[in-house]
Amino acid sequence: MTAPLHLISLNDLPQAEIESLLVRARDLKRGDTQPTLQGKSLGLIFFNPSLRTRTSCQVAMFQLGGQTVLLSSTADFWDLETQEGAMMDGEKPEHVKDAARVLARYVDGLAIRTVREPGPRYREDRRDEAIHLWARHSTVPVFNLESMLWHPLQALADLLAMRESLGSLQGKKLALTWTANPQPQQASVANSLLLAAARFGMEISIAHPAGYELDEQLVAEAKSSTKVRECFSMAEGVEGADVVYARSWGSLKHYGQPTVEAAQRGKLRDWIVNRDLMARTRDGRFMNAMPVRRNVVVTDDVIDGDLSLVYEQAENRLHTQKAVLERFLRT
Amino acid sequence: MTAPLHLISLNDLPQAEIESLLVRARDLKRGDTQPTLQGKSLGLIFFNPSLRTRTSCQVAMFQLGGQTVLLSSTADFWDLETQEGAMMDGEKPEHVKDAARVLARYVDGLAIRTVREPGPRYREDRRDEAIHLWARHSTVPVFNLESMLWHPLQALADLLAMRESLGSLQGKKLALTWTANPQPQQASVANSLLLAAARFGMEISIAHPAGYELDEQLVAEAKSSTKVRECFSMAEGVEGADVVYARSWGSLKHYGQPTVEAAQRGKLRDWIVNRDLMARTRDGRFMNAMPVRRNVVVTDDVIDGDLSLVYEQAENRLHTQKAVLERFLRT
Amino acid sequence: MTAPLHLISLNDLPQAEIESLLVRARDLKRGDTQPTLQGKSLGLIFFNPSLRTRTSCQVAMFQLGGQTVLLSSTADFWDLETQEGAMMDGEKPEHVKDAARVLARYVDGLAIRTVREPGPRYREDRRDEAIHLWARHSTVPVFNLESMLWHPLQALADLLAMRESLGSLQGKKLALTWTANPQPQQASVANSLLLAAARFGMEISIAHPAGYELDEQLVAEAKSSTKVRECFSMAEGVEGADVVYARSWGSLKHYGQPTVEAAQRGKLRDWIVNRDLMARTRDGRFMNAMPVRRNVVVTDDVIDGDLSLVYEQAENRLHTQKAVLERFLRT
Repeated sequence: MTAPLHLISLNDLPQAEIESLLVRARDLKRGDTQPTLQGKSLGLIFFNPSLRTRTSCQVAMFQLGGQTVLLSSTADFWDLETQEGAMMDGEKPEHVKDAARVLARYVDGLAIRTVREPGPRYREDRRDEAIHLWARHSTVPVFNLESMLWHPLQALADLLAMRESLGSLQGKKLALTWTANPQPQQASVANSLLLAAARFGMEISIAHPAGYELDEQLVAEAKSSTKVRECFSMAEGVEGADVVYARSWGSLKHYGQPTVEAAQRGKLRDWIVNRDLMARTRDGRFMNAMPVRRNVVVTDDVIDGDLSLVYEQAENRLHTQKAVLERFLRT
Repeated sequence: MTAPLHLISLNDLPQAEIESLLVRARDLKRGDTQPTLQGKSLGLIFFNPSLRTRTSCQVAMFQLGGQTVLLSSTADFWDLETQEGAMMDGEKPEHVKDAARVLARYVDGLAIRTVREPGPRYREDRRDEAIHLWARHSTVPVFNLESMLWHPLQALADLLAMRESLGSLQGKKLALTWTANPQPQQASVANSLLLAAARFGMEISIAHPAGYELDEQLVAEAKSSTKVRECFSMAEGVEGADVVYARSWGSLKHYGQPTVEAAQRGKLRDWIVNRDLMARTRDGRFMNAMPVRRNVVVTDDVIDGDLSLVYEQAENRLHTQKAVLERFLRT
Repeated sequence: MTAPLHLISLNDLPQAEIESLLVRARDLKRGDTQPTLQGKSLGLIFFNPSLRTRTSCQVAMFQLGGQTVLLSSTADFWDLETQEGAMMDGEKPEHVKDAARVLARYVDGLAIRTVREPGPRYREDRRDEAIHLWARHSTVPVFNLESMLWHPLQALADLLAMRESLGSLQGKKLALTWTANPQPQQASVANSLLLAAARFGMEISIAHPAGYELDEQLVAEAKSSTKVRECFSMAEGVEGADVVYARSWGSLKHYGQPTVEAAQRGKLRDWIVNRDLMARTRDGRFMNAMPVRRNVVVTDDVIDGDLSLVYEQAENRLHTQKAVLERFLRT
């Protein structure tokens, strides 16, 4: 048996493959849907609640003639052991390797969301062990529905939305800006977008408060293929931008120190995207991966304005996932 | 984009439409099912548990060739903000308008149960804001699976059951009677039945203890099209009835005062439908929308007797919902 | 209406029927799947979490062209009254007879897992009342997905796995051995295997610590058709075995006394299947019904070895259930 192809990060795919997925997604959006996955089943495993991702995955399979089995960690199964060789006499009655191997006998693919509350150390969370363990033991393709580090299917939907609105992305200016948010989030969306935009030749600015730098290795990787500018001011960051992408993420400086981080974060309420800020752009499109806290992350007038792409981004989850599922599961 | 047609209350539909749905439901019950909704998806959103409504909706879609995505508020998503213009820095990470707009990009219809524990004021609950908010922001049809005020799909199933058993409903006597029940319920089932029966020309009696009047506007509306008699005695209410419909609902007089209401309710244990009561009817059929507390609401001999329509009512949920879904979702 | 055929225990089926299900399951495993259940729906009711059983049932229906409605007791419905004639003024708003009758109007079959924590008395749990109540009131076939006493679909999958690996089972030696496990389990898997293996003419040894005897009536029943040996030593039990089936079950001696039983159980850590033990067999296959606590029930080297059938057993759940569903639901 050859190892299956998994989709953990967009880095797993060559550029030509991403191009072809985007073209196929556009055609699917225009209505070119065939029952290409008749008789196929996709297992959906969520280790926390999901609205958009879950619904769009289920409908994607349905529209292609396939089916889904939904497993949520809280309601449907138990804690899984992850240590190799563990003597399993504690709370965890099953090893992730057995869950993966068995489920892979039933379904044709496994789509898994492993993102969770940060642990004490970034170094460890950054290894993204959970999603890799599933991939290691599954004999069918594993699709990453958001891990600690990556959210590849969101990035694919974002790329499609930008192309629909801007045409070629080469040389276009993307302003990725941190925003206020009472709940810290993992940087998965920002990480995946950063590397995807870089690969498509966009010029990137990243604006964030001091202490909220993105992962330095990933920024370096983006810099290796395009111009990336970092700054501590939203206004500076969005200057002349074609796209303003709003997202909040937790502080790496205070990683694993939620109380310290919350105090710091509380002072940063003015990191909100509003009309004045958007006036500094070049007809800048507003983007956000949702759920969005209105009037905290962005004002109503911007998100509800003509240049907001948020609902297209959300809708594109459906179309890009259909393209991915067809590509990986079709026999 | 034109606004979609929603089904919040049977009042939304002209009489001829209801007639044609009942005819179609009867044909579907006789086996005339075609895959008219192939490729269509229905989102099912429940803000509290459901057995009959959920199962019958899922099977209705399946039998028509469609699919469902099930979202329950407790397990699958989070509290939704409902205030227009809110600064969302509290517990609620998503606005209902965004949830509705996004889900409407994925599915072809949204079926939603918003009924919940009563709030402090009837005046406010009566506005039935939650279901209307979903309808306002959804670009696909919204089906009411029970709100604070209405339960239109139950009423449609009830109408079909009465017609199957009695033929034309014109001039037939419906006795709607309050019963004991340790758990107060919203009057949604009673409200929808009252107006539906009135439109079909049934003569209606409503029996309930003092303080358990139904909404006076709705009773006035029913009176505008048929004879409606209110009384404080079950025995008087069911006299000569063709149908006895048993249902419990909370007291409007003590709305928002659960302790007072419970004390009052505790004294009303003799409001039970039994054989002696049914002997006062004209071969009266027994009806109830289930779940039913046996030997509290109705004695076993009555609900299990030959004139009980309760299982037909329940089964009709399937057939009438298939008729509704076909009518609203077929393209 | 004639009563439907239910599958509560393999005893419900004549031997020729089991044979034919195994043959059909083998063909289904080889790829001979047709949409024989198009338009059919199966209700899945779980009174506790399930991974394998649930996923394999859902995929079984999907692959045959059918659909499933999943109802879990915690999230989707309420406590059901089981007493005949009860005055239902307590916590339970619905009677199991009404839930069964109504669901049977919507779906074509009901697959139900009723196994739960042991009650105070074995005599009562042994009656397996819950699954029988559902069967009594359902007008569509009821499939037992594990009750207090039986797990027929696991036994069917186990029979297929043994036949695939050993050919004819007549005269082959099955060593059923108790193992350590921090969580006591019902003996349902062991009971069903014991009687199934006996019917197929296997010679059986049962090894367990003193006090962990299986149900004496069932052991007597097995003895009536084959050679059954009981012993208090794993090493003795597996001597010359073709198959070692590892399973833990609670002590009947201390039934309903969880503290006493836990103390007793805690001393039995050396009841683990390891390489030394397997060396005593005749190329013995290792079997287990999962979830499996690695290095407590069995060492990694044995379960991951060439003679382990655990993943085939798990996969066979899918194929045997497809055979059963076809047999019972096809019209």
